[in-house]
Amino acid sequence: MCQSGHRTIHSGHTHLGWDRSIPPVAQVAPGERVSFVCLEASGGQITARSSAADVAALDSSRANPVTGPIFVDGAMPGDILVVEIESFVPSGFGWTANIPGFGLLADQFPEPALKLWSYDPVTLAPALFSDSARVPLQPFAGTMGVAPAEPGRHSVIPPRRVGGNLDIRDLAAGTTLYLPVEVEGALFSVGDTHAAQGDGEVCGTAIESPMEITLTFNLIKATPLAFPRFSTRGPATRHLDVRGYEVTTGIGADLMQAARDAVAGMVDLLGARHGMAAVDAYMLASTCADLRIPEIVDAPNWVVSFHFPNAVFD
Amino acid sequence: MCQSGHRTIHSGHTHLGWDRSIPPVAQVAPGERVSFVCLEASGGQITARSSAADVAALDSSRANPVTGPIFVDGAMPGDILVVEIESFVPSGFGWTANIPGFGLLADQFPEPALKLWSYDPVTLAPALFSDSARVPLQPFAGTMGVAPAEPGRHSVIPPRRVGGNLDIRDLAAGTTLYLPVEVEGALFSVGDTHAAQGDGEVCGTAIESPMEITLTFNLIKATPLAFPRFSTRGPATRHLDVRGYEVTTGIGADLMQAARDAVAGMVDLLGARHGMAAVDAYMLASTCADLRIPEIVDAPNWVVSFHFPNAVFD
Repeated sequence: MCQSGHRTIHSGHTHLGWDRSIPPVAQVAPGERVSFVCLEASGGQITARSSAADVAALDSSRANPVTGPIFVDGAMPGDILVVEIESFVPSGFGWTANIPGFGLLADQFPEPALKLWSYDPVTLAPALFSDSARVPLQPFAGTMGVAPAEPGRHSVIPPRRVGGNLDIRDLAAGTTLYLPVEVEGALFSVGDTHAAQGDGEVCGTAIESPMEITLTFNLIKATPLAFPRFSTRGPATRHLDVRGYEVTTGIGADLMQAARDAVAGMVDLLGARHGMAAVDAYMLASTCADLRIPEIVDAPNWVVSFHFPNAVFD
Repeated sequence: MCQSGHRTIHSGHTHLGWDRSIPPVAQVAPGERVSFVCLEASGGQITARSSAADVAALDSSRANPVTGPIFVDGAMPGDILVVEIESFVPSGFGWTANIPGFGLLADQFPEPALKLWSYDPVTLAPALFSDSARVPLQPFAGTMGVAPAEPGRHSVIPPRRVGGNLDIRDLAAGTTLYLPVEVEGALFSVGDTHAAQGDGEVCGTAIESPMEITLTFNLIKATPLAFPRFSTRGPATRHLDVRGYEVTTGIGADLMQAARDAVAGMVDLLGARHGMAAVDAYMLASTCADLRIPEIVDAPNWVVSFHFPNAVFD
């Protein structure tokens, strides 16, 4: 079925893991616009009727299905695949979970937890987390990537130089993503759509939400690119920054521990200030608060900061 | 000498390193407003007539002098010192250097380099880096901290839980900083003023610039705080974000290496796009581009991104 004269890849065409031997489901020319219908990250295991028990029972082998792959005419190893992120058609349903064993503070949050979201897919008005907290939305796809050259099946969970589960919040409509091509045709797939996420995705999940995404593909021939890069056409965080931020830090010789300390500090602060359960603060922060590195040169200690937008509570 | 009825701590009152035994130069009451005249980070070794040879000859034992310390009445270990960052009077002179052996890519940039800046201290119009690049300014103090409880002299270079060389770009006018107090009177000092810096301060220096800073101090009694935190009253990056960003990434199992890869990617991109020498791109990025952590949960690989504002070249 076509919309507006361009083709749509339906969610029947999903795969789990990256593998150059997966046959492409469509062939597109450079300049062509393609829509992809994406499942949310559980692949249908979490629904609007789910509870924390369903989180505990999640089958991780079914996680993060991606729609595709598509073969881009003329794409060869050493090229750059240019992905113009055009638009999203969100579904209005979302979920955020604390999945035992997963997330930056997994040792501190061993119990499953689930927050179900309902948002307006047309207005994209901030989504209610509680009576007092609402999260500004900015849809994006957590996973966009191409097939690695190395044969075999590669887990879809870790990102790598060919992209994949990048979980970069700024890959929203209007942004252009550049991915290094490693195999003929590139073999691009997309999924893991999110209605909102903060930098870090600290609890391991965002507002996981099925949606349709429309992309246009182009090629830059024979140009080295070590890792993905992207361009934003305008401000990337205006939906969050209007009221300023509360910011916690972690300081020390290890960036990972500093990030953990900064996030733990924010969980404590939200709990003290808003009376939130710790796991709720952790999940809420994952959908809207940003991890940054203000200082990475004053040896032997670095600073990691975690920025929670005040707009959520205004 | 007083300005507007509040006291000023002059730059004759500087010290090198943190030490609880340094006698306070003034005693202030909670609620009092105090101005500090701050030297730039070289302590006068770099001037408007300096060259790269002076960078090579820098005496690091004279680096990062801070003005203070001041004794805050009633501050006791276990309290929080609340520092309201009121205003800055910048000098109009600044410098950025690549100092051999210092910086995130020190192995790739072994030669000294120096960029001298002249900016309008009244209008704070973006400062010219070259004919085509200009950096939006946002003055802040790179170093604000209190004395550690542990006796002896502690280097002023690394930040620690009592603050110090935090180099957090968002600690600009209007921001409130919260620091854990470890000794009676807190013993607060400030210095290392910057006219602009990106998150990470990747080449090791910002736009290092002498200026006067005005602060108001308050106390929150007997409240635990593991690491510094801060609140911004409004958007923190509007001076940079209006035209969007070019963003490079690094992806892998080590956050430090991912940060290095993201910065190296930006140095390459700026060189290819604007014909800049690599060390110039590295120094320019240090003054305006931001290191962020979009993803820190999709084991075993994390994503670090480096955001260069397009406004610099517009």
